[in-house]
Amino acid sequence: MDKGKWLRAGERIDDLQCGGYELIQQPERFCFGVDAVLLAHYATIKEGDRVLDLGTGTGVIPILQCARNKRASFVGLEIQEDSADMASRSVSMNGLNDRIQIVNGDIKEVASLFDAASFQVVTSNPPYMVKGDGLINGTEPKTIARHEILCTLNDVVSAASRMLKQNGRFYMIHKPFRLPEIISVMLSYHIEPKELRMVHPYVDKEPSMVLIGGVKGGRPRMKVAPPLILYKDKQIYSDEVYRIYNK
Amino acid sequence: MDKGKWLRAGERIDDLQCGGYELIQQPERFCFGVDAVLLAHYATIKEGDRVLDLGTGTGVIPILQCARNKRASFVGLEIQEDSADMASRSVSMNGLNDRIQIVNGDIKEVASLFDAASFQVVTSNPPYMVKGDGLINGTEPKTIARHEILCTLNDVVSAASRMLKQNGRFYMIHKPFRLPEIISVMLSYHIEPKELRMVHPYVDKEPSMVLIGGVKGGRPRMKVAPPLILYKDKQIYSDEVYRIYNK
Repeated sequence: MDKGKWLRAGERIDDLQCGGYELIQQPERFCFGVDAVLLAHYATIKEGDRVLDLGTGTGVIPILQCARNKRASFVGLEIQEDSADMASRSVSMNGLNDRIQIVNGDIKEVASLFDAASFQVVTSNPPYMVKGDGLINGTEPKTIARHEILCTLNDVVSAASRMLKQNGRFYMIHKPFRLPEIISVMLSYHIEPKELRMVHPYVDKEPSMVLIGGVKGGRPRMKVAPPLILYKDKQIYSDEVYRIYNK
Repeated sequence: MDKGKWLRAGERIDDLQCGGYELIQQPERFCFGVDAVLLAHYATIKEGDRVLDLGTGTGVIPILQCARNKRASFVGLEIQEDSADMASRSVSMNGLNDRIQIVNGDIKEVASLFDAASFQVVTSNPPYMVKGDGLINGTEPKTIARHEILCTLNDVVSAASRMLKQNGRFYMIHKPFRLPEIISVMLSYHIEPKELRMVHPYVDKEPSMVLIGGVKGGRPRMKVAPPLILYKDKQIYSDEVYRIYNK
């Protein structure tokens, strides 16, 4: 089947190796990484859940989750119009219009877009870097995806808390160096951190990412998982990462 | 040399395998575990530092640290009179009276025992369990060492903050399930969590302990270390733990 009709200039279609789904990406803008795949897999989604992905980009997280969770529905919120448009076309191309809704809008204005406490789950793979860190060209799509230019950690967690039902679950992937701030901000918005998993490139290396899950209004007690090791050898994924990619 | 003169009924002398030092313990009361050894090794102590160990028990942490840090001095604070007495005798027996002072007193009254901001480093291997968790006989020395009967996490961190100089360092070992509370309490007393290391019994198991270090008045940015794996096989310590024990 010719899928060229879904594409615009500079875009390509990538196989997600998951449920037969594919994703429209534009390499010059931003391509999803292992972090999105890990987060999509880490989040526990149950039958009938309504799930909001904050800063969905090209929609990779809800599309991956659709493959695994047949009876959940998803909303992806994305501020960049071009990314939201790509995400919408990926959803249509995969025949998922009845399960995923892409909304072009601002996390900071989430209260005007959705009813409060209307989601069982919120996910987010937000920009990791604070505004001042590293070189920045503030209008580049890649920079917006990586740096806190259009939204901060506080904006993401605040929006998640507002959108979650009581006992609803929040899942995020982020950088370990910001862990104290992540935990502190979650607590300040009444999302109790309940689970955590460090992601290490190799077993003897510092973690490059951290997966964290919290429950709105939950009681304190965190479950820390064994380390997730990405590689068993140079450029060879660990067995667990292979399993995650092929689930 | 006959060391019997240092001992009281039910006590024994254990070799610390570190600097030739030994420790008086009473198995019926409480014996130090791998956690004390890991904490003693984890804490960075510099030449000339004055170090306070909160809840020092039999004094194992300052005695171990003495072996590695020739030009630092130590104060061990212990509320249980019998433990403090054992610690004092161990200090004397090891000839460390000029380097370690054992004080029998209450962490909650630290302000009346020492000058504020008079230590470069504070360490603590506090009771891990909240008062209600598990079976409790509230007057047993073992229970007091393990449960928050005579002091809470908040008491420990509050005392540490009061005793530390600006930019002084706080090191603690605790249970991962309390990590959000640990980080939150440290932040509330202006001790910025700066380093963290999860301790796993095996590489594919959940962590049983967490080592954390903070800086009073420090700037946010946490360094998370590779996982510390205790065992490489059943009852066989990993090479790293062997190195820690023999340093």
